[in-house]
Amino acid sequence: MNLILLTPAEAAAQPVVLRDRRAVHAHEVLRARAGDLLRVGILEGPLGQAQVVGSDADELRLECSFDTAVAAPGADTLVLAVPRPIVLARCLAAAAAMGYGRILLFRSRRVDRSYLSAKVLQPAATRARLLAGLEQGMRTRVPEVGLFDRFRPFVEDHLAGLTPSRARILADPGATTRTADLRLDADTGYALALGPEGGFVPFEVEALGAIGFTPVTCGPHPLRVETALGYLTGQLDLLRSRRAAAPGD
Amino acid sequence: MNLILLTPAEAAAQPVVLRDRRAVHAHEVLRARAGDLLRVGILEGPLGQAQVVGSDADELRLECSFDTAVAAPGADTLVLAVPRPIVLARCLAAAAAMGYGRILLFRSRRVDRSYLSAKVLQPAATRARLLAGLEQGMRTRVPEVGLFDRFRPFVEDHLAGLTPSRARILADPGATTRTADLRLDADTGYALALGPEGGFVPFEVEALGAIGFTPVTCGPHPLRVETALGYLTGQLDLLRSRRAAAPGD
Repeated sequence: MNLILLTPAEAAAQPVVLRDRRAVHAHEVLRARAGDLLRVGILEGPLGQAQVVGSDADELRLECSFDTAVAAPGADTLVLAVPRPIVLARCLAAAAAMGYGRILLFRSRRVDRSYLSAKVLQPAATRARLLAGLEQGMRTRVPEVGLFDRFRPFVEDHLAGLTPSRARILADPGATTRTADLRLDADTGYALALGPEGGFVPFEVEALGAIGFTPVTCGPHPLRVETALGYLTGQLDLLRSRRAAAPGD
Repeated sequence: MNLILLTPAEAAAQPVVLRDRRAVHAHEVLRARAGDLLRVGILEGPLGQAQVVGSDADELRLECSFDTAVAAPGADTLVLAVPRPIVLARCLAAAAAMGYGRILLFRSRRVDRSYLSAKVLQPAATRARLLAGLEQGMRTRVPEVGLFDRFRPFVEDHLAGLTPSRARILADPGATTRTADLRLDADTGYALALGPEGGFVPFEVEALGAIGFTPVTCGPHPLRVETALGYLTGQLDLLRSRRAAAPGD
């Protein structure tokens, strides 16, 4: 936890008084003492700084001041075939930490139907994983999450109309376009689609291709979903920042 | 498991007969039947193709043929502060899947001493995680793994003399150099150093800097070790491949 996240209501009090896992974490892991400075943030609001005015295992008391600027919601969309529940839990947190603004979970042919009733898909459990990711990545914007049981309506009725309309990328070990061949504009969100272990079936690649998703490979060595999520997000972020650094590149 | 890994002794028999977890996996997960083709590889040797001549829960029989070329050992080195055991297990497999040739684990100031006696650090357990990564990433070269309890001798006596002598990178959220500012030559291995949750202490950044590790940031949003491993490896691999694609870039 690199950031203590507060609700707007909590942040309105002065001092802020917390009596849940955040107090325990500050006391036991951060070993917070009166006078220490901690990073804080308001959900959907600004980051800020807090001075500890009291900390024990039961209660954390903070004097907070907040920045004036609030980060924009994440511009990127993760389109993810529902993985095993334990992997999904890690992907949700990682995607939130990396700044995705939207996470669209869908059932593809190779997704085990039982995964759709995983506990982590219950709204409170999903939210807890997202907040853990925000606390890790020092962010305050909670990604939107959608779950889609039927592939074709998801693609045709929902995904087709969503931004970004360009920079739609589909991870496919069998693709001929390499990530190094991509060009991404600065300040443009991307959508990254990741299939299940075992990959998309051809029909799915075609359906996503029909709405502008380019199949891209990062080489002949398939990665697990959670590793691929970090690996490809790193590459797309880099491609975008390099275009920003050198527009004529 | 995208690849069935064989020892040289196993691969010398024709047909190859397997009676362990690989047989179970082929039968239950891959649903292998006589006539199916599977990818196989020999440890430290070539990849190849196998035709299933028999598969049940107890025994898998394969007729194998192998490529003539063997991939070179991985040229990249991961320098990793020992993380929590469960995270270490995932990092070992991910690093093997991504093709690291060497994984050097060390104890930094912020590493809990108990992590060094984790079960996953016992040679057989470590090897099992590495093989799982190779099976995922369709590779046959087992990374070398070293464990170093004392930081200063590790850096000065061991790490300083190892290849690569250039392209040494240290992940540090407080750095001023961005990954986008880096230049990596094609065909050159890199060394990536990742600290513990909570980061390196300044002394460690200095000691690594003294032997040529450049502190690099991928932004103001700290990632968990396993996410950072994928994210930064993706970026370094991309930087290297882009140099290869456009030498005058």
